[in-house]
Amino acid sequence: MGGLKERFFGKKTKKVGSPPGSFVYTGEKRAEEVRITVFDYDRNNFVEEKYSTAENCGRFKDTKTLTWINIDGLHDLEIIKTIGLQYDIHPLILEDILDVDQRPKMEDFDKRIYVVMKMLSYDENTERINSEQVSIILGKNFVLSFQEKPGDVFDGIRDRIRTSRGRVREMGPDYLAYILIDTMIDNYFIIIEKMGNRLEILEEDILNNPSSSNASASIHVLKRELIFLRKSVWPLRELISGLERSESDLITKPVQPFLRDVYEHTIHIIDSVESFRDMISGMLDIYLSSLSNRMNEVMKVLTVIATIFIPLTFLVGVYGMNFTHMPELGWRWSYPVVWGVMAGLGIIMFILFKRKRWI
Amino acid sequence: MGGLKERFFGKKTKKVGSPPGSFVYTGEKRAEEVRITVFDYDRNNFVEEKYSTAENCGRFKDTKTLTWINIDGLHDLEIIKTIGLQYDIHPLILEDILDVDQRPKMEDFDKRIYVVMKMLSYDENTERINSEQVSIILGKNFVLSFQEKPGDVFDGIRDRIRTSRGRVREMGPDYLAYILIDTMIDNYFIIIEKMGNRLEILEEDILNNPSSSNASASIHVLKRELIFLRKSVWPLRELISGLERSESDLITKPVQPFLRDVYEHTIHIIDSVESFRDMISGMLDIYLSSLSNRMNEVMKVLTVIATIFIPLTFLVGVYGMNFTHMPELGWRWSYPVVWGVMAGLGIIMFILFKRKRWI
Amino acid sequence: MGGLKERFFGKKTKKVGSPPGSFVYTGEKRAEEVRITVFDYDRNNFVEEKYSTAENCGRFKDTKTLTWINIDGLHDLEIIKTIGLQYDIHPLILEDILDVDQRPKMEDFDKRIYVVMKMLSYDENTERINSEQVSIILGKNFVLSFQEKPGDVFDGIRDRIRTSRGRVREMGPDYLAYILIDTMIDNYFIIIEKMGNRLEILEEDILNNPSSSNASASIHVLKRELIFLRKSVWPLRELISGLERSESDLITKPVQPFLRDVYEHTIHIIDSVESFRDMISGMLDIYLSSLSNRMNEVMKVLTVIATIFIPLTFLVGVYGMNFTHMPELGWRWSYPVVWGVMAGLGIIMFILFKRKRWI
Amino acid sequence: MGGLKERFFGKKTKKVGSPPGSFVYTGEKRAEEVRITVFDYDRNNFVEEKYSTAENCGRFKDTKTLTWINIDGLHDLEIIKTIGLQYDIHPLILEDILDVDQRPKMEDFDKRIYVVMKMLSYDENTERINSEQVSIILGKNFVLSFQEKPGDVFDGIRDRIRTSRGRVREMGPDYLAYILIDTMIDNYFIIIEKMGNRLEILEEDILNNPSSSNASASIHVLKRELIFLRKSVWPLRELISGLERSESDLITKPVQPFLRDVYEHTIHIIDSVESFRDMISGMLDIYLSSLSNRMNEVMKVLTVIATIFIPLTFLVGVYGMNFTHMPELGWRWSYPVVWGVMAGLGIIMFILFKRKRWI
Amino acid sequence: MGGLKERFFGKKTKKVGSPPGSFVYTGEKRAEEVRITVFDYDRNNFVEEKYSTAENCGRFKDTKTLTWINIDGLHDLEIIKTIGLQYDIHPLILEDILDVDQRPKMEDFDKRIYVVMKMLSYDENTERINSEQVSIILGKNFVLSFQEKPGDVFDGIRDRIRTSRGRVREMGPDYLAYILIDTMIDNYFIIIEKMGNRLEILEEDILNNPSSSNASASIHVLKRELIFLRKSVWPLRELISGLERSESDLITKPVQPFLRDVYEHTIHIIDSVESFRDMISGMLDIYLSSLSNRMNEVMKVLTVIATIFIPLTFLVGVYGMNFTHMPELGWRWSYPVVWGVMAGLGIIMFILFKRKRWI
Repeated sequence: MGGLKERFFGKKTKKVGSPPGSFVYTGEKRAEEVRITVFDYDRNNFVEEKYSTAENCGRFKDTKTLTWINIDGLHDLEIIKTIGLQYDIHPLILEDILDVDQRPKMEDFDKRIYVVMKMLSYDENTERINSEQVSIILGKNFVLSFQEKPGDVFDGIRDRIRTSRGRVREMGPDYLAYILIDTMIDNYFIIIEKMGNRLEILEEDILNNPSSSNASASIHVLKRELIFLRKSVWPLRELISGLERSESDLITKPVQPFLRDVYEHTIHIIDSVESFRDMISGMLDIYLSSLSNRMNEVMKVLTVIATIFIPLTFLVGVYGMNFTHMPELGWRWSYPVVWGVMAGLGIIMFILFKRKRWI
Repeated sequence: MGGLKERFFGKKTKKVGSPPGSFVYTGEKRAEEVRITVFDYDRNNFVEEKYSTAENCGRFKDTKTLTWINIDGLHDLEIIKTIGLQYDIHPLILEDILDVDQRPKMEDFDKRIYVVMKMLSYDENTERINSEQVSIILGKNFVLSFQEKPGDVFDGIRDRIRTSRGRVREMGPDYLAYILIDTMIDNYFIIIEKMGNRLEILEEDILNNPSSSNASASIHVLKRELIFLRKSVWPLRELISGLERSESDLITKPVQPFLRDVYEHTIHIIDSVESFRDMISGMLDIYLSSLSNRMNEVMKVLTVIATIFIPLTFLVGVYGMNFTHMPELGWRWSYPVVWGVMAGLGIIMFILFKRKRWI
Repeated sequence: MGGLKERFFGKKTKKVGSPPGSFVYTGEKRAEEVRITVFDYDRNNFVEEKYSTAENCGRFKDTKTLTWINIDGLHDLEIIKTIGLQYDIHPLILEDILDVDQRPKMEDFDKRIYVVMKMLSYDENTERINSEQVSIILGKNFVLSFQEKPGDVFDGIRDRIRTSRGRVREMGPDYLAYILIDTMIDNYFIIIEKMGNRLEILEEDILNNPSSSNASASIHVLKRELIFLRKSVWPLRELISGLERSESDLITKPVQPFLRDVYEHTIHIIDSVESFRDMISGMLDIYLSSLSNRMNEVMKVLTVIATIFIPLTFLVGVYGMNFTHMPELGWRWSYPVVWGVMAGLGIIMFILFKRKRWI
Repeated sequence: MGGLKERFFGKKTKKVGSPPGSFVYTGEKRAEEVRITVFDYDRNNFVEEKYSTAENCGRFKDTKTLTWINIDGLHDLEIIKTIGLQYDIHPLILEDILDVDQRPKMEDFDKRIYVVMKMLSYDENTERINSEQVSIILGKNFVLSFQEKPGDVFDGIRDRIRTSRGRVREMGPDYLAYILIDTMIDNYFIIIEKMGNRLEILEEDILNNPSSSNASASIHVLKRELIFLRKSVWPLRELISGLERSESDLITKPVQPFLRDVYEHTIHIIDSVESFRDMISGMLDIYLSSLSNRMNEVMKVLTVIATIFIPLTFLVGVYGMNFTHMPELGWRWSYPVVWGVMAGLGIIMFILFKRKRWI
Repeated sequence: MGGLKERFFGKKTKKVGSPPGSFVYTGEKRAEEVRITVFDYDRNNFVEEKYSTAENCGRFKDTKTLTWINIDGLHDLEIIKTIGLQYDIHPLILEDILDVDQRPKMEDFDKRIYVVMKMLSYDENTERINSEQVSIILGKNFVLSFQEKPGDVFDGIRDRIRTSRGRVREMGPDYLAYILIDTMIDNYFIIIEKMGNRLEILEEDILNNPSSSNASASIHVLKRELIFLRKSVWPLRELISGLERSESDLITKPVQPFLRDVYEHTIHIIDSVESFRDMISGMLDIYLSSLSNRMNEVMKVLTVIATIFIPLTFLVGVYGMNFTHMPELGWRWSYPVVWGVMAGLGIIMFILFKRKRWI
């Protein structure tokens, strides 16, 4: 359960007390080198370079070509600071990039649009959603993207740029930023589908075998993951519509339909998460009522057995008494008569229970 | 339960990773041929043609008459692409038409209004709502409609056009689009009524025979279908009011009262769905309280029986002991006295329970 | 329970498939003749006429006097159509008048204001709210009102007009429409009060005698009626404020304070309905907790009895064994000692239960 | 419980059917004389008079000094009408003053601002909130206030005017109206605190002694009073902000900060009421879970006792059988061996239960 | 529990009845002297002084340098009044500063911006959140801050000013006010994290050991603290966005991005509090279902034991009867046969229970 706290409650305390604008990396310390990938291209030309320091990144700033710099790893503060200086990034943005517990948001600082969101992945073993913060900065002719750890989610985009597939080589930096965002949001559908699978399995489980005692734990875990997912997903709505309605020159008209499209996807995801919540609360209800039902059944069995045999046991107890003067004891047919009476009582009880539908 | 996942969680994953604007059909593969029906008419003339390829569809584009092209089946990408080219449809719209897990929405792309919504049908056997995606594109003098599978819901409209019944032949493409939408929304009332019937049966069932153990499953299934219905219905509000308030020339003034009318129907449907939700949650409450009541009854029976007979059994046990020195055993009237005492105890207990209203 | 479906889910299906603007009466078929009452008056003159056909209704249209035509009964389509033609009513309005499952709304069609709302009455026997649809059309110098069945709720207004009591003869058609609406909304207060009475009785019942087993059914029925009431009441807010803020010339300035007043009444009714919902959900809670409490009591009795007597019964069983070598059996004081031990055990148990406050 | 209906559901029915603007007093009939108190003052002069009829009230209307007329008692319609005429009050306002079941509201009728709200008091004996309607009319140089019954809540204000303490003698009628409202809202804090006290006592009670069986009734009563309080409090928000944002000349600029202040108080009260609701629903949860816990404990005791002794009783029953051929009966050490076996069984069971933490 | 009332319900009653604008300190009486700390600085100069009376504070008002006066302790009304006069503070603001039960808010009084909020601290022993009210007044070249008791939360800021670290010496009073607010809001993250820790411990506790009987009390306490936290946190949203969107000259353009940043933090905190609420309600659900499960288990054990042994006990009772004519008693193999029958019955029962998965 160690990750619960970190995922939900953040680690802001590392920073409390430090002045605003101070650079503190709040994520996990990492050993690997930071990996910087530079794509510099226009419709006709394409250059790809890899660095592990930031020195050479600045020279792409004033080229006319579109530059995409992707930084994998935030733990080397020097690199972040250097790139921040090279590309005139406001210190508050740099601070937010390093603080990996940001709420997804979009900010329009003079001549830069800053987008921060979560990239989610689903860990099948722990049944948990893991999240990584991705920051994107959109400038006049460049896009910077920052990830906590190396990942391959943007590889498809890289391929498309290299091979000049799709529209990406023909359009501006806003389109590039859009496809980065779109790729991450497409990724959310995978999470939604995985959660959906688990929900379906759980539903079948509860409907068919309601007494399995770990259903409530499963429901709880699923619910908690949904709360987490929801926290990442809800702010996206505002984020994307903020981009779409932005008055900045950085978002050009041809990209707006695409943003509207990704906005619809976001609403779709939010709708699904809310439906899941509804469904999971329905499952809890059905689980609780199945527990009650179960209890009722158990109680009925006990009651039927006890109600039939306790009076009979009393009766045989009576004739087990040792009084000297118990005339019945000596009678010839007492024993079979008692048996008869007892059988009669039992049958009557049985019929009564049958009528009450307890058996 | 196989359909649960598909209906709720979609199949977006088929598409994840593909660049925006790429054409991927996310629905079921189908064997039948795609059926294209073309209606080309004005007040006086009427032509009806059927094709299975898209080649000949383009020639209606520049006629002055109103053209309605209905495509049954989305699995042949070539046809969709061809028609898209013929009628200048934006690639993002084509992508949405093919992605059958769209949230109902309305979009106003330059000179085209795109509407996507769900056509629902209720399967009496599985007690499920099935849904099919219908896309409608409204242009200057044409309406395109796309369905996943052949259906007869628009047949009434076709008849009215053929026989020139109603207003349809006298009005423009916006009116035609309106009656397509109106027909589908009218269809929702059938679903509402069927759900209502089941709700009523369920209510009667729970009130009269609360212990039937599958009530909670029925409640759950009904609730799940309501969540699904709700997901299809809520976005309609925004969709229709978007159409009504659209500033596009494609929606003419005479059609606006009709759109306002269909808007009221949508609100009516949403109201009904919400009332159903309220009622179903009330049913769960009544079911749970009936379970508790039931349990109480069972427990009372057990307690009454046990409380009366356990002390009596103890008493007869006492006189079943084999001590040599038990003076009562030899007394003449011990046995009837013990019977008397026991009968007395039993009667007192009975009266006590009567007073507590346990019997 | 037969009415549940009709009240909640409507009967729209009768209409599904028919083209928009077609006239289908969705209410109950009725045998009586339609009753048309015409009031034509100004400050000084007053004419009252009764018809059973619509022929003569048209001639009041162009008089300068104010005309109020009340139609009791919608089942004769000819009459509705004729009046529609005489007074230039848009076909969509006529369609809505005939469809008695309309959501309360207000519409401002060119030179006509159309208001549709529900007149509620409370049936003491079935403990149900019945509803009848009333449509009001306000024109330049006339008011048309349509009711499903003859009723006397407007009789007070008729008297006031006849006897020239109150302001009604001095003011315009908008004031007349206002008092029709006001009368119906005043009627809602009666429903509110009747529901309140039942709520109060139910509350007292549950607090004093929580185990009465039909409380949950009563709660359910009351809740369902509240859902129904709510559905009729909520749209009124929008309806009245729509009238108040209408830019139509038909609503004159002197009538606006009256509309504001009726708006406040509407809010008051909505507030009451919401309070009722809160209170009824509180009652369910108290009822469920009283069930649990009850169960606890029953279980305590069982447990006390069983816990005291089961060990004692074991003890007497021991000395009922028939072993040859059981030295205690022969001792002189065994029997009284055993009684003593048993009495002691019983008393100790009793004290323990007393301390645990189980007795 | 007699007051429940009146407090919650009003007595509007007295009025239903009467034409709008008709004067019907809907409160309790009262025997005492109506008491009219007139304060007429400016910075330097001060006159105080008491009347029991309205005749002499009119002459203050045209003085330049500020006049405050307070009427205690609404049951004498003549007085209300006379004052209404003297001060040009719109009939709808007079009607609202007499209808003591008004929702708190503020209305801006030509040259008069009308405020109606509830003065609450808490009755320690019945544990109920009582409410009295207070109407305030603000005119150019006068303030009229109407109370249902004589009360002393405004006495502090009277003293301040008499002794020229505070700002009141230096400011206009809007400030006077403001301090009347402020005094009533300050009064709400007393209610809030009293409810808070009861909530605290109840919480302690439930946490320490969860099985006390009247907790659910206490929770219910508290909840009902909260619903009532809420109904009086929520509309205040709109009322005060309506005053603050009013464009009427009657509210002068220097009074606006004071209104903003009282607005903050209102929000504060609403926040508290909502927190109370949250806390009380939390208490219900804890109470219900404590009931379940309690039941678990009871059941465990029963189960432990029954599970230990029922098998032992069976065993001794076996050796109580009277078969001729039961070899064990004659053995020398049978009896102690049986005791040993039983003790062993008992100890094993005890250990098992200990492990399951049932004991 | 003594603090519950004070934290939640305030102590407004001390003030009720006093005229608006009267100075009443509603907090705890304190013995210590009030401590006034004055920082007067610009980019180059820095003066720090400490007073215990207010006399000398006024002379900083007209200097060009920025002055920050921090007052620790509100119990000396003279000091507050004197400073109020020196810096032209509106009496209503002074009143609010002294009333320590203010709802967090921001007010823009002519040429002064007044901010009041709560500084929270978490007491590990009592597991409670304590709160202290902090008021900040921002003027043209000064900032006044008022705390209830001496605290060290602003010490970091003091150090930064003294040592000229960070931006604070270079920017205006609005930036100083911002870092005061930012520091307090950063402090909230500590509370969030501590609550998160407790939530996590509680979750683990409930999932692993659901029957621990004090879980419901822990849930309740945590929930109550969350309600308290929420009450302090929600109004911050409006407060900060009020500052950001303020049209006052006192908030300069360079400070706005910082305010937007702190706004995002506030939203983040609110999101976390809401997630906590969701999670805690999930925990209650899981706890309640675990109670039911537990009960089910207990009942199953009882039922299994009782159902197996009660019939057997009856059987041995039968052969314990003392009838003279019981032929079985004399048969040679009766005893072993009875044992066999009983063993058989026991085994059959056992298998049945196994099948029902009760064992």
